Amino acid sequence: MAWTRHHILGLADWNTEEYEILLQTASSFREVLSRRTKKVPALQGQVVTNMFFEPSTRTRSSFELAAKRLSADILNFAPGTSSLSKGETILDTAKTYLAMGTDIMVIRHKQAGVPHAIAAEMDRLKTGVSILNGGDGQHEHPSQALLDLFTLCSLIDAENPRLALLKSKKIAIVGDILHSRVARSNIWSLLAAGTQVHLAGPPTLVPQFFAEIATETYPNQLALHWQIEPALKDADFVMTLRLQHERMTDHLLPSLREYHQHYGITRDRLKLCHPDVKVLHPGPVNRGVEISSDLMDDPAFSLIQQQVTSGIAVRMALLYLIGTLKSE
Amino acid sequence: MAWTRHHILGLADWNTEEYEILLQTASSFREVLSRRTKKVPALQGQVVTNMFFEPSTRTRSSFELAAKRLSADILNFAPGTSSLSKGETILDTAKTYLAMGTDIMVIRHKQAGVPHAIAAEMDRLKTGVSILNGGDGQHEHPSQALLDLFTLCSLIDAENPRLALLKSKKIAIVGDILHSRVARSNIWSLLAAGTQVHLAGPPTLVPQFFAEIATETYPNQLALHWQIEPALKDADFVMTLRLQHERMTDHLLPSLREYHQHYGITRDRLKLCHPDVKVLHPGPVNRGVEISSDLMDDPAFSLIQQQVTSGIAVRMALLYLIGTLKSE
Amino acid sequence: MAWTRHHILGLADWNTEEYEILLQTASSFREVLSRRTKKVPALQGQVVTNMFFEPSTRTRSSFELAAKRLSADILNFAPGTSSLSKGETILDTAKTYLAMGTDIMVIRHKQAGVPHAIAAEMDRLKTGVSILNGGDGQHEHPSQALLDLFTLCSLIDAENPRLALLKSKKIAIVGDILHSRVARSNIWSLLAAGTQVHLAGPPTLVPQFFAEIATETYPNQLALHWQIEPALKDADFVMTLRLQHERMTDHLLPSLREYHQHYGITRDRLKLCHPDVKVLHPGPVNRGVEISSDLMDDPAFSLIQQQVTSGIAVRMALLYLIGTLKSE
Repeated sequence: MAWTRHHILGLADWNTEEYEILLQTASSFREVLSRRTKKVPALQGQVVTNMFFEPSTRTRSSFELAAKRLSADILNFAPGTSSLSKGETILDTAKTYLAMGTDIMVIRHKQAGVPHAIAAEMDRLKTGVSILNGGDGQHEHPSQALLDLFTLCSLIDAENPRLALLKSKKIAIVGDILHSRVARSNIWSLLAAGTQVHLAGPPTLVPQFFAEIATETYPNQLALHWQIEPALKDADFVMTLRLQHERMTDHLLPSLREYHQHYGITRDRLKLCHPDVKVLHPGPVNRGVEISSDLMDDPAFSLIQQQVTSGIAVRMALLYLIGTLKSE
Repeated sequence: MAWTRHHILGLADWNTEEYEILLQTASSFREVLSRRTKKVPALQGQVVTNMFFEPSTRTRSSFELAAKRLSADILNFAPGTSSLSKGETILDTAKTYLAMGTDIMVIRHKQAGVPHAIAAEMDRLKTGVSILNGGDGQHEHPSQALLDLFTLCSLIDAENPRLALLKSKKIAIVGDILHSRVARSNIWSLLAAGTQVHLAGPPTLVPQFFAEIATETYPNQLALHWQIEPALKDADFVMTLRLQHERMTDHLLPSLREYHQHYGITRDRLKLCHPDVKVLHPGPVNRGVEISSDLMDDPAFSLIQQQVTSGIAVRMALLYLIGTLKSE
Repeated sequence: MAWTRHHILGLADWNTEEYEILLQTASSFREVLSRRTKKVPALQGQVVTNMFFEPSTRTRSSFELAAKRLSADILNFAPGTSSLSKGETILDTAKTYLAMGTDIMVIRHKQAGVPHAIAAEMDRLKTGVSILNGGDGQHEHPSQALLDLFTLCSLIDAENPRLALLKSKKIAIVGDILHSRVARSNIWSLLAAGTQVHLAGPPTLVPQFFAEIATETYPNQLALHWQIEPALKDADFVMTLRLQHERMTDHLLPSLREYHQHYGITRDRLKLCHPDVKVLHPGPVNRGVEISSDLMDDPAFSLIQQQVTSGIAVRMALLYLIGTLKSE
């Protein structure tokens, strides 16, 4: 088993071996992070450029710290004060950072496909630069889904997190599936793990076509519900999604209060689940909307903090795998 | 004498020993900063996160450089482009950075008490994270007062700065005491040093109750004046405070010109003081308002540059003391 | 031959030896950048502060990476969130960063002369701080012209880039000469190299007085054209300049389309030049305005990527030369 993937654009086409290598590598970095000196020289001399065209501190900080832990040099591209406002195209901006010596670009953009377009151009020019999708529109957010996967596998076997641990487990993904790149990436990784994935939310946000996106490759693993109860029934895990306030003005939702009444995760609702159920949320959380405030803070149920912590190890693993591939 | 304080929230409850340890530690870091290689590996592997909810470059840069000199990794939380605008609570933001592996958080917020609330939550969760108040509302700004203290003590005995050097010295603190966290923190440290503290400014900005805030613990050390002359009389040091332009629109002041006429520090006014008088200002300065422009640039009187320089050594000392406490 | 210049403010008064030292030093850093570990400890312990009062990511990132490659500590002053909005003067901001321990300041400001004013103040105060002009108004942008020079010399002899290589070569500088600090700095370096410099553009943007700026020192080396054809005739290099959109609202130009028709660099127009002609552009590029889009991407003609890459080596050289001078 050896790593061969050069860009991390999405999980739709990842194979089982790739997930296993990622989980093992993240696990070894978690061990590094528990030491007193938390740094390894793996990417010394390499340049990681964060290109976040959409505002973000959470994900950007996570990638930044992961890159620092690997001894890389980091450049932060800030669109607000940038050449973009001077009319430069995104591809030209990327090529400028390439010419400065960038080895890995982490790209977030509100338009789906931007990281892929930059990756294609980097390949066409034979640059050797790797692209890591930090979230593109409503398409994919692979590092988030991988840190969710790592969190869930580590929960079951911290020493040896592996895909098989999630086989036949039931997870409910609740909320605005339609607009969620987090949900999309998670669907691919969880299906690959053999998990039973139940999507739930209002019809405007969970359209029928989601039930069919994976019927060929993963038959009988994906279900769709417009009521939350059947999704939660005996679930091992519940993943709530962030509700964008814009959905209200888009007339896709009546009100936050009504959303919480029908789809909010509460102690009461969790009684439908497996007794050991755990709750995930990619953050930032609207307390009292997607999840009741007290539940979010209850370590007996909430995995939210573990998700963030997993983020550093998983992003170190991603940067390491594509970074060392480059230098071979 | 050993350091035991975990958070630096304010100076109101600091004891003499703590001041002495801080002064000695800052002194040893000043020596480090005079070497060719100005770095020590003391905080290697630790993460210092700057969370400045209020804009600042001066204080943030000072903490950032101090942390770099100690070989820490630094994360900068930028509220403008952050999850805050997505509705996340401040406590949740702090917990996110905690989960990423933050060891020390430097927090500035326009609302008094925010660093304390985060510190309480960090303690309740037994996280081991230390909070350093980088300025909270009109409450405290401990690192600023400590760098002022270090500047004054070092002026008298650079080799061995200690609290006793300021005993029975007279300092005039002039300006907008009411809204100044710098003044509040300085009052505590200067009283602890046995200094005679004279507050002066217009009645709207120096309310009567300030005269009584320390009468029990430090009787006869604090005086209040609405005319500047008695405060300056034979003073060893004059500390002018920044005048916020908002005070004009709040109708607390007639005009900047009138303020300068009554309370501005000028060469003429300094003749009332001790012949060796020195002037401090926390910056940024409104030239010609709090202090006349030529006086600010006169090294015979102004300690403004030394204050900034002391800031690096004092903030290294604070980060070092709480950082090494953590790793024991 | 030894380096003696303390500030890099502009190229108007550089002598031949200085250019040669710069080219050789940049060449040796390019070699460092080709190694696996791309760092040297030359500026360890020194502080480089980027003070970009005008927004920029391209130049700032380039200086930041150059400083990191030399192991310096970097502070970034961000005017948006700074003391400037609190009424502090630029000189006072500079003195604050001086007092924190800054060794080199890289300054960009929309007003010509700001870096010079700060340099004069730093010298007057005998601070030892070096100022590097990162672009001041419409005056000079020395590091850009030096990276252009290094790119051109390296093109002819990569092993041994030197001024003599450009002697009697012809370069056309095309576009908004009047408002371009890039053009101004390039004129000085190219004239010093003995290059034939032909300026071309509309009369509103290429005023007659440019023909006379160097007649005494460099007679018969500078020509001015309001038609592009004579400038391109047999040219070895074509440097196009960025066209600011503001020029349209200033009524200095009819439209972008008309500008491109008369002065845009296209494959067809390049047929007038020497067969091996190369095209430069300081970026960011307005595709289809200053240069046709396909030409910009054609490595047979475009040196744009090489310019950016040269920028890291040249800025390392500048920081190194003034930084090591300081520590002697």
